[in-house]
Amino acid sequence: MNQTLEQLLNRRSIRNFTGESVKEDDLTLILKAAQQAPTSINGQQISLVVTRDKAKIKKIAEIAGGQPQVATADVFVTVVIDYNRADAAMKHAGQEMVISKSAEGIVVGSVDAGIAVNALQTAAESLGYGTTVIGGIRANPNAMIELLELPENTYPALGSTIGVIDTKIASAVKPRVPIESYAMYEKYDTQKVASGVLQYDTELRSWWDSIGLSDMPSYTAQTAQFYSNIYFPEVAKTLLSQGFKFSDEI
Amino acid sequence: MNQTLEQLLNRRSIRNFTGESVKEDDLTLILKAAQQAPTSINGQQISLVVTRDKAKIKKIAEIAGGQPQVATADVFVTVVIDYNRADAAMKHAGQEMVISKSAEGIVVGSVDAGIAVNALQTAAESLGYGTTVIGGIRANPNAMIELLELPENTYPALGSTIGVIDTKIASAVKPRVPIESYAMYEKYDTQKVASGVLQYDTELRSWWDSIGLSDMPSYTAQTAQFYSNIYFPEVAKTLLSQGFKFSDEI
Repeated sequence: MNQTLEQLLNRRSIRNFTGESVKEDDLTLILKAAQQAPTSINGQQISLVVTRDKAKIKKIAEIAGGQPQVATADVFVTVVIDYNRADAAMKHAGQEMVISKSAEGIVVGSVDAGIAVNALQTAAESLGYGTTVIGGIRANPNAMIELLELPENTYPALGSTIGVIDTKIASAVKPRVPIESYAMYEKYDTQKVASGVLQYDTELRSWWDSIGLSDMPSYTAQTAQFYSNIYFPEVAKTLLSQGFKFSDEI
Repeated sequence: MNQTLEQLLNRRSIRNFTGESVKEDDLTLILKAAQQAPTSINGQQISLVVTRDKAKIKKIAEIAGGQPQVATADVFVTVVIDYNRADAAMKHAGQEMVISKSAEGIVVGSVDAGIAVNALQTAAESLGYGTTVIGGIRANPNAMIELLELPENTYPALGSTIGVIDTKIASAVKPRVPIESYAMYEKYDTQKVASGVLQYDTELRSWWDSIGLSDMPSYTAQTAQFYSNIYFPEVAKTLLSQGFKFSDEI
């Protein structure tokens, strides 16, 4: 066991902040740690837009569906899928950039955004700050594109809050589906996944009750609530309008 | 500064392994750390398939384009976008799962796969192991789907090697584009990104030369090589055949 592992095994989303500032030196280290995370083919198809302006953070909180955890964060970092960088590189090399026109480009850009946000949050947490991943900016991607002045071939994939943890408000490590139904050896096992869901449904219900949040839905109820509709129905059209394409052919 | 930050700031891909085993207890901790990473709406739309069978690892190395760094790893972990879990949950709730039929589902599944792989690798590295992200399994997704027996509504997004580092072969921290062209404050800056590319092109060239790899391409040359074609041209069709759709409507 070590400090890093302990942090990862006890990871939780932090939604309550004191309002104190994230130190500038700490923020620089956090951003550098995110940048050192790997990218496919070292394409570096990720950029960050760091929002410290409190009025803009409030605007982002609205865009993300009116989230107080965003409005009260000291810093909001938007993780941008960025093929504008590759485009600039390839113009220099006299070639046409086509990665953004492919399903591969959408998948790998999203994967790299996830890698970057996890490195960023792990760094922030190691310095004692709290974070939550904010996918809600995809509820209205065009508003984010306008706010951050994102050019063609870029896309606001997700964001992260960073703030000083309000320790007066408790946070608990949320349980997960049984590990044997998450990490399967040698091949996927549909039976384990199905039975894991049922076991977890009961466990998550008990966990919410144990922390006094009996109104919160069980796993099956929450999943049904979100995944019976397309809850962010602007993603395809805004990707297309930013110059992306979901295709296997140029 | 702390141990976690130091690790993140010095992160590098490790492609040379001794062939020694990853300890079973360590692997369990690594998998648990990956699982504790956040997922959108706590949907837990990620599963891992852990390959330890050496013949299967060699097969994966072939699928990924003949990569010795995969063939010689002790463990290969495939990170699977898994809406089969949500489907099982929603069948229990008597509702139809539609998230996999949306562009949002493809983006958030890929993002969550990136988050999971970064947590997994950070955990493995904290225990002294080496890792590399392997996107190459998307060169032939159907072969991975068959090998791991992946059902409908799942997709092999990417993988990670884990192995004992061969310290006789040096590895160096690869430089990145200038931080001010990666992390921009308040809004995106196309000028900074473009000038960052040119500065980096020279820096990366010098860095390759400094470690004796003068044959390696500069940033613009490498990007041009990969991104002038759709280098994984099976991603859209294999997502579709697994039951995914890139759409904003049900």
